[in-house]
Amino acid sequence: MVEQSNEIVKKNHTRPLQKRQTKKIDNKQTQNEENENVQMQEIKEKKYSSKLKITFLGGVGEIGKNMTAFEYNNEIIVVDAGLTFPDDDLPGVDIVIPDISYLIENKAKIKALILTHGHEDHIGAVPFFLQQINVPIYGSRLTLALVENKMKEHQNIKYRAIAVKPRNVLKIGSFSIEFIKVSHSIAGALALSITTPVGTVVHTGDFKIDYEPIDGEMTDLPRLGEIGRKGVNLLLCESTNVCRQGYSMSEKSVGRALDEIIKNHSENRIIVATFASNIHRMQQIMDIAEKYKRKIAFTGRSMVNVSEVAMKLGELSFNRENIIDIEKVDKYADNEVLIMTTGSQGEPMSALTRMAMGEFKSLKIRENDLVILSASPIPGNEKNVYNVINALYKLGADVIYDELADVHTSGHACQEELKLMHSLVKPKFFIPIHGEYRHLKTHKELAMRLGMEERNILLATIGMQVEMGTNSIKEGKLVKAGQRLVDGFGIGDMDSNVLRERKQLAEDGICVVCVNIDNVAGEVSGEPFIITRGVVYADEQESFVQDAKACIISSLKESDLRGVDPSVVRLSLKRNISNFIFRRTKRRPMILTIVTLD
Amino acid sequence: MVEQSNEIVKKNHTRPLQKRQTKKIDNKQTQNEENENVQMQEIKEKKYSSKLKITFLGGVGEIGKNMTAFEYNNEIIVVDAGLTFPDDDLPGVDIVIPDISYLIENKAKIKALILTHGHEDHIGAVPFFLQQINVPIYGSRLTLALVENKMKEHQNIKYRAIAVKPRNVLKIGSFSIEFIKVSHSIAGALALSITTPVGTVVHTGDFKIDYEPIDGEMTDLPRLGEIGRKGVNLLLCESTNVCRQGYSMSEKSVGRALDEIIKNHSENRIIVATFASNIHRMQQIMDIAEKYKRKIAFTGRSMVNVSEVAMKLGELSFNRENIIDIEKVDKYADNEVLIMTTGSQGEPMSALTRMAMGEFKSLKIRENDLVILSASPIPGNEKNVYNVINALYKLGADVIYDELADVHTSGHACQEELKLMHSLVKPKFFIPIHGEYRHLKTHKELAMRLGMEERNILLATIGMQVEMGTNSIKEGKLVKAGQRLVDGFGIGDMDSNVLRERKQLAEDGICVVCVNIDNVAGEVSGEPFIITRGVVYADEQESFVQDAKACIISSLKESDLRGVDPSVVRLSLKRNISNFIFRRTKRRPMILTIVTLD
Repeated sequence: MVEQSNEIVKKNHTRPLQKRQTKKIDNKQTQNEENENVQMQEIKEKKYSSKLKITFLGGVGEIGKNMTAFEYNNEIIVVDAGLTFPDDDLPGVDIVIPDISYLIENKAKIKALILTHGHEDHIGAVPFFLQQINVPIYGSRLTLALVENKMKEHQNIKYRAIAVKPRNVLKIGSFSIEFIKVSHSIAGALALSITTPVGTVVHTGDFKIDYEPIDGEMTDLPRLGEIGRKGVNLLLCESTNVCRQGYSMSEKSVGRALDEIIKNHSENRIIVATFASNIHRMQQIMDIAEKYKRKIAFTGRSMVNVSEVAMKLGELSFNRENIIDIEKVDKYADNEVLIMTTGSQGEPMSALTRMAMGEFKSLKIRENDLVILSASPIPGNEKNVYNVINALYKLGADVIYDELADVHTSGHACQEELKLMHSLVKPKFFIPIHGEYRHLKTHKELAMRLGMEERNILLATIGMQVEMGTNSIKEGKLVKAGQRLVDGFGIGDMDSNVLRERKQLAEDGICVVCVNIDNVAGEVSGEPFIITRGVVYADEQESFVQDAKACIISSLKESDLRGVDPSVVRLSLKRNISNFIFRRTKRRPMILTIVTLD
Repeated sequence: MVEQSNEIVKKNHTRPLQKRQTKKIDNKQTQNEENENVQMQEIKEKKYSSKLKITFLGGVGEIGKNMTAFEYNNEIIVVDAGLTFPDDDLPGVDIVIPDISYLIENKAKIKALILTHGHEDHIGAVPFFLQQINVPIYGSRLTLALVENKMKEHQNIKYRAIAVKPRNVLKIGSFSIEFIKVSHSIAGALALSITTPVGTVVHTGDFKIDYEPIDGEMTDLPRLGEIGRKGVNLLLCESTNVCRQGYSMSEKSVGRALDEIIKNHSENRIIVATFASNIHRMQQIMDIAEKYKRKIAFTGRSMVNVSEVAMKLGELSFNRENIIDIEKVDKYADNEVLIMTTGSQGEPMSALTRMAMGEFKSLKIRENDLVILSASPIPGNEKNVYNVINALYKLGADVIYDELADVHTSGHACQEELKLMHSLVKPKFFIPIHGEYRHLKTHKELAMRLGMEERNILLATIGMQVEMGTNSIKEGKLVKAGQRLVDGFGIGDMDSNVLRERKQLAEDGICVVCVNIDNVAGEVSGEPFIITRGVVYADEQESFVQDAKACIISSLKESDLRGVDPSVVRLSLKRNISNFIFRRTKRRPMILTIVTLD
């Protein structure tokens, strides 16, 4: 579907063009114009024979672990270094980060790491990146403060962080990077306009268009329009909500819904769970608390940390006297407090989940509580979230969540907002980013409906290197890239032995058989051991072990054990035991056989 | 929140009533009326001193495995015997069924199993039920045909099945059961009006209200109204969609959307995935195929089975000549065929998933294909469904799913439909069923908004036995009930060793240590064995094993091994190895130690 090469230079052979003209008469004029363009372009191309190489190391064909490298001659700048949280088919894995082998190979060229905003899928892999590649990092003050917070656990890594502001322009070698204010579900989010000798690339980061921004500064549409008018070669635009029609609801309308709810529950104790990074949501909730004369208590590690950071930076503004310690909540009447907590995703160790399970020391949920989940479950978290809601109800609390009221809005642009971005930037070429394949595909179709030609749109995959010239874009080579699983102290691959083994163990359990053979006498010495885990239910255990031992002994009797090679015994033993267990349980557990010689 | 007893008889002491009257003057008249009622009721109560006991064995506080028992004196009828599919925290478990210990104990009393409709969460546990309790089963023809299909794998169980029709009345001992036609996402769905000596109970089963039913017969609102007018003691009403405002979309409007899409893709090969049990959806798709002169091929085991069953019963009507074998699809032009398949939930072994993965022999997905997923992902299936969609796109197909068009509607009543049911049945008492706690709670609030008093509503839990008199309802005892896990040939409990072990294995893996000790010489004889699975990544394996062996040897050196008890050695070895591995990997795998004596 995507042409391997869109380089117009290649098309400057008159023959094939003429051939096409005879086939499609209506295309005649277009083709002539194109011909002219091509000739002009050829001149430019000669001047700048180098291409801008854009390498996608994450965030395409997936939601999460965003990372893109821009390379011109001997200079590379990297945009974002994010992580993904593993889902259930990665048992025991803590986080997933991009494989940066390509960057490590080209370490000497790398000049900077630029961060669009402070969400984990954009900054979560920064410590792992800096461990290997120590370059200055750039981002908004809040983004850098969140990175700093994260780096506390990696005190041995020294790094340089430079704060930037919207409309700042940063020159790094051949790159000139302008930062553009965008609205998102975290403050301090920036889009990038990256100008290179072969043209300008606009990278939207994550954004939405909110005409009622909390901080008074909306997505910088005029500047995006100006940049578009000057000419943009390539747009990299996020795709998270491309399947949603219309516009995303404004953040202020969430505030209005929360105000209404809190007003109508004037006698209840109120607990609001939301994302700690959503400073604007927090600001609104704190303003509402102040309006209704409620003190605010923060709980949950990230809520406490982020609110502290944001207050210091002036991103959260309120009267410090209004803040109370969570331990002191019980000294106030129910209608005098509002508790802000983490756990809106039902994360097992979060404050809200522990409250729901009755395991949270500082706060016991009870009948007069109103809990508001000001968030939507991220796909995959639904069950955890609903478990928490059910548990809160059972403790007698009232619960309001996104299914019941407009207490959340997404930070990502829906279809009409994406159309506005495309219309302002008016790029020659387009690569949708930040989405599963279905999002990228739908975003491509959206761009085509806006008049873009299919050949000017590329769908990227992880590891793809795209080469951009002044008037061309094409798929280049594939570089080593993918997922790295961080698991305790270990870092492994997706297809590692560890993961495969854990999955087999989870499905069917394990059976360990240990036999000692006297291969001089040619007989089993002592009794065979058999241990199972995750195979047999407790009440069947005894008879199972007995029968399994009989199976082992009869299996060993089949062969002459004098002078036998233990590995031969092991193989036949394994087969026999496996079949025995399958007949008995319809399961095929992992079988470990240990055969020792006397 | 729910009063332990609502028995009005207890209130027939004049004192407390007078006391209340002095407090609340406006209630005077009501109280007097109540007093009168109470006196009349007392007479009735004397006549029928027995209570109707309603035991909830599943489907309350959860979505799935529905089962309720109605017991009057020495007679029990059971309504539904459903299953739940396990989620990711039940690794290796095939299905979950209700614990029917209570029914087994009271086997002699059980007269019948009545099935409201043929979905798995209502009939899935029938074979396990019949294995232990062999009583006649009643249901619509389609429901019984689906049970028969299921019983093919249990040929040793003989049972009697009696088909019923809407408005049929079945007399079983003291029970008189009327079957009431309801619309749902499967044909042949029935609500029940169960009349007993102490009053009538209406059990809605699963239902929606569809004013444009495919089979021409809508939910029997007039009959429900009549029954309501005669007086209903208790309503048991499903709660699946109680959090959704408004009305569910009609099934015919899905048909119209599908028609439009298929008309607009006149040159594409079309593949539609939907639930095999949704006969009405199938009927509409087949009608559309016929309209646009496309032959129909079925694929996927349940799709083939159910379509066969439904055709035989006349629930699906169409021209047999229009059906072709899936193997022969390639003999037709793309615009001459429509393929109906299972797999709308992205189930790993389903036909659609195998098509998406390129592993389906009879059909290869390619560029001119349009795949329509005429279904919504059931919570928990989102990731699988989106993986299938992404894979189909990558193969070049176009994909339409519920996010992009109105290609599905729910079979469950939304808020306004539930209100209609309550308004027609006008019950004295209400117990919401078929829902997680949050659904039951929200349904209770809905009933209260319609004017019901809180004390007349009970929230049931699994195992709860509710006692109903002519004018009373109260929580009775709790009976043994819960979940049974079917796992290969084994059946276990939720908190079984097997499950705990599998979870630990999945998270952290296993380490097996095997040492042979010569406790006469007091030394390790031979080399210790160490095997890990799911712990160490391949490239660290060798150095890990080496260091682990050193750890074992030094651990054993600590103690005097002469005449030592192997179990003592095992304990200290286990502790030392566990600590060694934690320091090294930050993981705590399961440790199995085998110590043998020479």
